[in-house]
Amino acid sequence: MTQNYPDATSIAASVRGREVAAKAVVAAALARIADQNETLNCFTTVTAEKALEDAEAIDGAIARGKDPGPLAGVPFGVKDLFDIAGITTLAGSKINAGNPPATRDATLITRLKQAGAVLVGAQNMDEYAYGFVTENSHYGPSRNPHDPNRMTGGSSGGSTAAVASGMVPFSLGSDTNGSIRVPSALCGIFGLKPTYGRLSRARTYPFVHSLDHLGPFARSVRDIALVFDILQGPDPEDPACTRRPPEPCLPELSKGVKDLRIAVADDYFIKGAESSVLEGLETIAAALGATQRVGIPEAHRARSAAFIITASEGSNLHLENLRKRPQDFDPATRDRFLAGALIPATWYIQAQRFRRWYRDRVRELFQQVDIILVPTTPCPAPLIGQKTMQLGDEEVLLRPNIGLYTQPLSFIGLPVISVPVQQAGQLPVGVQIIAAPYQEAQVLRVAAYLEAKGIVSAPVPQ
Amino acid sequence: MTQNYPDATSIAASVRGREVAAKAVVAAALARIADQNETLNCFTTVTAEKALEDAEAIDGAIARGKDPGPLAGVPFGVKDLFDIAGITTLAGSKINAGNPPATRDATLITRLKQAGAVLVGAQNMDEYAYGFVTENSHYGPSRNPHDPNRMTGGSSGGSTAAVASGMVPFSLGSDTNGSIRVPSALCGIFGLKPTYGRLSRARTYPFVHSLDHLGPFARSVRDIALVFDILQGPDPEDPACTRRPPEPCLPELSKGVKDLRIAVADDYFIKGAESSVLEGLETIAAALGATQRVGIPEAHRARSAAFIITASEGSNLHLENLRKRPQDFDPATRDRFLAGALIPATWYIQAQRFRRWYRDRVRELFQQVDIILVPTTPCPAPLIGQKTMQLGDEEVLLRPNIGLYTQPLSFIGLPVISVPVQQAGQLPVGVQIIAAPYQEAQVLRVAAYLEAKGIVSAPVPQ
Repeated sequence: MTQNYPDATSIAASVRGREVAAKAVVAAALARIADQNETLNCFTTVTAEKALEDAEAIDGAIARGKDPGPLAGVPFGVKDLFDIAGITTLAGSKINAGNPPATRDATLITRLKQAGAVLVGAQNMDEYAYGFVTENSHYGPSRNPHDPNRMTGGSSGGSTAAVASGMVPFSLGSDTNGSIRVPSALCGIFGLKPTYGRLSRARTYPFVHSLDHLGPFARSVRDIALVFDILQGPDPEDPACTRRPPEPCLPELSKGVKDLRIAVADDYFIKGAESSVLEGLETIAAALGATQRVGIPEAHRARSAAFIITASEGSNLHLENLRKRPQDFDPATRDRFLAGALIPATWYIQAQRFRRWYRDRVRELFQQVDIILVPTTPCPAPLIGQKTMQLGDEEVLLRPNIGLYTQPLSFIGLPVISVPVQQAGQLPVGVQIIAAPYQEAQVLRVAAYLEAKGIVSAPVPQ
Repeated sequence: MTQNYPDATSIAASVRGREVAAKAVVAAALARIADQNETLNCFTTVTAEKALEDAEAIDGAIARGKDPGPLAGVPFGVKDLFDIAGITTLAGSKINAGNPPATRDATLITRLKQAGAVLVGAQNMDEYAYGFVTENSHYGPSRNPHDPNRMTGGSSGGSTAAVASGMVPFSLGSDTNGSIRVPSALCGIFGLKPTYGRLSRARTYPFVHSLDHLGPFARSVRDIALVFDILQGPDPEDPACTRRPPEPCLPELSKGVKDLRIAVADDYFIKGAESSVLEGLETIAAALGATQRVGIPEAHRARSAAFIITASEGSNLHLENLRKRPQDFDPATRDRFLAGALIPATWYIQAQRFRRWYRDRVRELFQQVDIILVPTTPCPAPLIGQKTMQLGDEEVLLRPNIGLYTQPLSFIGLPVISVPVQQAGQLPVGVQIIAAPYQEAQVLRVAAYLEAKGIVSAPVPQ
């Protein structure tokens, strides 16, 4: 087995301890990207020059005895819907290529840079984040490091494949219906979708205002917690961002899980899943001693409502271009946007009304349990180009159904981490660890416990 | 000139001081209702028996030396979209007549009853609150006490005519696009539309979730403040109600207006208004020494967006009945609901996006001024049945245009009081006093100052 890649925490420790220069770390990351990106197609833009400059500045700060920050010298990438100063934010589209470059970094990038992290580039995604596959018709598919014939999942597939392949130890992505969790599962890494409204969305390209979340990918739970803690906190530039002060999660990781009531969701959330997925779920449930089963009512309606809100808000955002230059959209994205433009307001309003109702019902569930476990996807990574999948006895369309288990959760903004499990010789699968709103610390504690027991980890591609 | 009617504050003082029994006060109110309601058609239900019982209970409490509350023995009515235990909430419709009686009072009624007020009945309105005229096809038009051939305005016309005619000293109504302010102006009384989300809407019949407000009508500013202070405060039964603790306004009334920057809105908000309306506005501006003019940008778009949100959310609520029994709707309401059912989601979403933008722009305005003055309606009370009105040189449809000056303000939830002004021998007109969100105390201070100077008051019908 290949030796594991160092995580962000250990890289920062080495840089801070002057064992290695930030510039050397970043140069090595750029070399890995140069080596693998032609195959895996994770990065759409590599900001090599600026990254090396930034790394040098960190080395300079260290040389002058200044604190370079908790992420000193750690290279990272962002899904290409985050504004990067000086670069046009493509959001996976051809249309946006005509836009002027962004003048400032997204708030979350700024916070990471202030902590010493070094941005190395923008990562591939489904056009306008509308998809679960990262098979982008303009920029090509990203490929799964565990099998380049297989998809990464999406829509943050470039970001997860970059982490899974060891190009960078962490990335940022977005999740509207599952776009952080699905590709984390298929690429075998950790991905955190925080509570809706918890992280600033300032200067990121929107998709669905009511459902868009941003969050980190990494290869260790401590990295997820470290990065999330840096990203937390109110932002006057995003009025939809919570005013809650940050609640650091990193100090919580070692607290164990004894006080947590952990249950496994049944019915909707296991129906049709492949055996390797169910085995992954059972492995985790057993390690946590979780025997309780819990039903999440009306999850299928939650998914329908999420589809309606997504198509309606998404199409509204692109209406002018859908009218003027429909041919410039990715065909897979265009058809759904056009369909969204035809949805009546009353459906959309009904979906939003249902969302309030469903949120209250699930909130009641969390009076009985603290943590709910659910598979992330019904299957491991499908082949690139695959159009259908098996869901139990049924053959169904692949694109909409990969998010079967993720959509009802982002719909009401619950914090979820997808953790990677792998049986020997098989592709990795993901399990979602879910808690009540603002209980990110709880999901990270469970993930850290499982990681410490050796149950979950990000496998190195063979 | 007829002697003025006593206000709630003075009635409560008399009852608390044992000068008069609550039962006598309530019996007198019931007698006035019996005398005038046939003409004015304000009350759709009079709860005489229960009201006399409640009044007796208050007299009993006083006899036993208990504090009967700050509204002891004060009779009041509510627009018939508030749940009253034991009575079916009609919301001005024929369809709802088939519903079972409400099992509990609306939260706001409960709070008033706990303060000693005595509910005497439910008041007429436009069907499902969708209108500015209170010409209800099922229950007949309410009539303006200043001229029974004229309309009350709406949709809370029964509630304002009941106060203007002295049947009750105060009422509660609702305002989605102007339904508190418009009939307050046309009937010549005070009406407060508080900040969106400030008062609980629990157990009231909804119209437009995004825009519905509840609030009080009265004949004096101290009554408005007294009642509003009792109504304030979080309500776990209404998740959309603010968690802000109450901020009593009554103690603020005597503070004067010296520290307030007061401006008069121009352009959109005066264009087309009749001379008596502009004179009312100028009288008030002069009394306040308000010489500054301020433009509220894009008010016409705000109004368009309010129309779209209203029709979309309203029709969603009634969709099933629109399909099954359209003939049972008021024709004036039905057509707009049907039109609303055909609106595309993308229009609705655009209207909501614009609302966020517009709210932020107007918030910026309130960094330069504290108070903005605007007419409430373009004209005094039109004749019942009148279909068009004069707007400057243009003849326009009356129903949609009566709310011309109110819609852009409720659209972003600003607190507004409509105050009555009257030139000798003319019909009363209203002026809106507007402040930043949660600054109800400021609008009430201005109103109290104007009242103390004799500039505004609720005229007794001749």
